[in-house]
Amino acid sequence: MTQLEIMGKSAKVAARMLATASTGAKNFALKAISEALIENSAKIIECNNIDIENARQNGMPESIIDRLKLDEQRIKNMAKGVDDVIALPDPIGRSIDGSKHANGMVINKVTVPLGVIGIIYEARPNVTSDAAALCLKSGNAVILRGGKEAINSNSAIAQIMRNAIEKTGLSADCINFVTDTSRETASQMMRLNEYIDVLIPRGGAGLISAVVNNSTVPVIETGTGNCHTYVDKSADIEMAVNIVNNAKTSRPSVCNACESVLVHKDIADKFLPAMYAKLREKDVTVRGDDAVCSILDNAEKANEEDWGKEYLDYIIAAKIVADIDEAIEHICTYSTGHSECIVTSDYANAQKFLTQIDAAAVYVNASTRFTDGGEFGLGAEIGISTQKLHTRGPMGLNELTTVKYLIYGNGQIR
Amino acid sequence: MTQLEIMGKSAKVAARMLATASTGAKNFALKAISEALIENSAKIIECNNIDIENARQNGMPESIIDRLKLDEQRIKNMAKGVDDVIALPDPIGRSIDGSKHANGMVINKVTVPLGVIGIIYEARPNVTSDAAALCLKSGNAVILRGGKEAINSNSAIAQIMRNAIEKTGLSADCINFVTDTSRETASQMMRLNEYIDVLIPRGGAGLISAVVNNSTVPVIETGTGNCHTYVDKSADIEMAVNIVNNAKTSRPSVCNACESVLVHKDIADKFLPAMYAKLREKDVTVRGDDAVCSILDNAEKANEEDWGKEYLDYIIAAKIVADIDEAIEHICTYSTGHSECIVTSDYANAQKFLTQIDAAAVYVNASTRFTDGGEFGLGAEIGISTQKLHTRGPMGLNELTTVKYLIYGNGQIR
Repeated sequence: MTQLEIMGKSAKVAARMLATASTGAKNFALKAISEALIENSAKIIECNNIDIENARQNGMPESIIDRLKLDEQRIKNMAKGVDDVIALPDPIGRSIDGSKHANGMVINKVTVPLGVIGIIYEARPNVTSDAAALCLKSGNAVILRGGKEAINSNSAIAQIMRNAIEKTGLSADCINFVTDTSRETASQMMRLNEYIDVLIPRGGAGLISAVVNNSTVPVIETGTGNCHTYVDKSADIEMAVNIVNNAKTSRPSVCNACESVLVHKDIADKFLPAMYAKLREKDVTVRGDDAVCSILDNAEKANEEDWGKEYLDYIIAAKIVADIDEAIEHICTYSTGHSECIVTSDYANAQKFLTQIDAAAVYVNASTRFTDGGEFGLGAEIGISTQKLHTRGPMGLNELTTVKYLIYGNGQIR
Repeated sequence: MTQLEIMGKSAKVAARMLATASTGAKNFALKAISEALIENSAKIIECNNIDIENARQNGMPESIIDRLKLDEQRIKNMAKGVDDVIALPDPIGRSIDGSKHANGMVINKVTVPLGVIGIIYEARPNVTSDAAALCLKSGNAVILRGGKEAINSNSAIAQIMRNAIEKTGLSADCINFVTDTSRETASQMMRLNEYIDVLIPRGGAGLISAVVNNSTVPVIETGTGNCHTYVDKSADIEMAVNIVNNAKTSRPSVCNACESVLVHKDIADKFLPAMYAKLREKDVTVRGDDAVCSILDNAEKANEEDWGKEYLDYIIAAKIVADIDEAIEHICTYSTGHSECIVTSDYANAQKFLTQIDAAAVYVNASTRFTDGGEFGLGAEIGISTQKLHTRGPMGLNELTTVKYLIYGNGQIR
C-alpha cells in the first residue's frame, strides 16, 4: 500500500464515523479548530515565513507572494471563516422527498455525506481551513493536497486542525493532508476510486483540465469563467458602464469577472467611449474587433484567441454585434458556462437571453461578480461548479451531500 | 472531424433548441414516436430477425437470444413505454429555490436540461426507445450507442424515431444513433467532452468499469448490485424466508436481486433450513461459510470471492455472523452501495442498520427488489445510480436535469 492508500483507508474509516456524528459534535470540533488556529498563530506564521522566503528565492512576483502571506489578522479571518460554518445549518439528515408505497412501505429520501472528498488546490493557505471546515460540517472526511508554494503553511494548519478535533473525540483522520506535492501523488489521488468519492480541483485552468482528463474518481469541475456582458440596443448607458466597470475591475483575478463585452451596433457610438472613459481610470486595456477599434482610438486589435480568453487581469475584449442573436451565438461559442449578463430595458430581449443562454448564472442588469456562495445565500462556498452534473454554480454545504433512500417495511415482497 | 464529432456537433445544436421546446411540442414528438413504432413493427421485426439469426450463428445461448427478440407484443410494450413518458410531468423549468438579495436582485434557481446525454448500452433493444423518450421529455439530445448484438434492431428503431420527430418539427438530431459498434467509437465517445455533457453506461460490470476508467466526460455509474439481506436474531423467520426468496428468485438477473444472506448465529439453526427448503423449489445453490455448511448439508463451500460476487443467477452466498455489528462490517466491506436489507423486529437494530449502512437504498423488512424507478414513484427509470455524485438510486426524469440561476437586477453592482 502506498502512503496515499493508507491515508485513503484511514479517511474512509473516519468518514463512516463522521457520517453519523451529531451536529453538536461537529460544531464542537469546528470550535476547537477555530480556537487552535488563533492559539497557534505564531507557529503558523513561522512556517509561512519559510514559504515566503522560498517564494522570494524562486523569484515569485510580489503580487502572488502577497496572497501567500499570513499574518495575525489573516489567521483571525481564517478562524472567523470556521466560526461562520458553525453558524450554518447542518445539511445532513434532511428529508427531501418521500412517499408511501401502495403496499404500505414508507420511503424516505434523506441527505447523507458524500464520504471522502479529495481537494487538489493551488493558491492561498486559507483554503486549507475553509475546505476542511465545510467538509467536516457536512460530515465528509477530506484529503487535502495543496500546492508546493504553501506546503509549510498548509502542513502546519492541517496538523493544528487534526490535533484540535482529536481532542474533541472525533478522529484526526477526518482531516488529511498530503505532504508530498509531487505530480505523481496528485495523479494517484485522481485514481483512488476505492477511497475517494469525489474530487474537487480548485485553481487555474491547467490544474482543472489535468484533473478532468486524468481522474477516474468523479470530479466536480470548478472555476474557469469566460464571462460576457452584452449591452443591448435599449440599455441604459450609465447602468451598462457601471456594470461592465464593476464586473471587470472590482476584482479582475476571480472567475466571475467579466472578460468580454458585446455591444449592439446601434448603441456602440455612445456606449464604448463612455465605457472607455470609466475603464481607463483603472488602466484597463481594451482589445476590440475592427468596428470597436474604429470607435476607440486606444483599443488594441483583438484576434480570435481573445474571445476565448480568461484574462484575469485589467484587459477586456470588446466586439460589436448586429443584434441580440449574434450576441447569443457568440456567447454560446465562447462561454465556459459560468456567468453571463445582458444589460437591456427590453422585456422580450431579457427573457430571450435568460432562456437561451446556457450558464450557471444568467443576469439581467446586474454584475456577474455576484456569482458567489455568500451572495447567493449559501453562507459559504467551496467553489463554483461549471459542470452540469451534481451541481452548478456556487457550492455550499448542501452541495457536499448526496442522498440515501430509507425504506420501512413489514414483510413486503415484489 | 470524425463521424462521431459531426454527430456530437449536430446533437449539441439540436439540444439548444430542444432545451426551450414547450411541453406540448415534446409530447407531440413522443406521440409521433410511439405511433411510428407500431406502424413500422414489420420493418423492426425484419431487422430484428437478422440480429437473431446472427446470434444463433454465433452460438449465443437461447436465454440471451430471448432477450434480444422482438415481436408485435414487445413492440407494443415499447410504444406503451413511450406513452407512459408523455403522461409524466415535464421536469424542465421548475423553480426549485430562490431568494431576494438585500440589494433587491431576485435570484431564481430553475431546472434545465443537462444538454447532450451519451448512453452506452448492451442488452435489449427496448432500451433504444426507452432512453430516447426519457431524454426527449427532459429536453436532452441523446447519442445512443448500443451493443453489436442488436445493431440491426437498434438502427431501425432509431431511424424510425428520427423520422417521426422530424415530422413534428423537432430536429431529427435530438436522437442520434452510433452505427459503428467498434471499441474505438465507444472510447471516442468517452472523451467527447466538447459535445457530450453526461455519459450513462448501462450493462454489465465490464462495460461500466471500462466507462468509469476511460471517460473524461462526467459519468453516472449505474447498476452493479451486490445486495445483502441480514437476518437479525429477532427476525420473524417466515418473513425473512419470504424476503430472501423474493429478493433472490423473483428475477435473479437484475441488479437489485439479493446475492448474499447474513444470518445471526442465534437464529441460524432455525432460519437456514427453512430458507433452504424454500430456495430449493427454484434449484438455488447456497454457498456457505463453514458454519452454514455444518447446518445445511447441501450447501457448497464459499470462498473469499463469493462475498464480492454479483451472481445474477440462482446462487446465493450465506454467512453466519456473531451480531449486527459483524453484519454491518461485512456489508461495508463487500457492498456495491446499491440495496441492503435487514430483517428484524428490534427497533434499535433497525435504526442502527438504516444509519450505518451506506447504500442507495436501505431496507427494513422488505425485499431489495423494490429499488426501481417505478416502485419509488418516479414513473420511469433510465438506470440506477450507484455513485454518490449527482444522484443515487433510481434515476427518473428529474435526475436528467441540472440547474441554472436566473438573476433579475436593475443595475446592481458589487
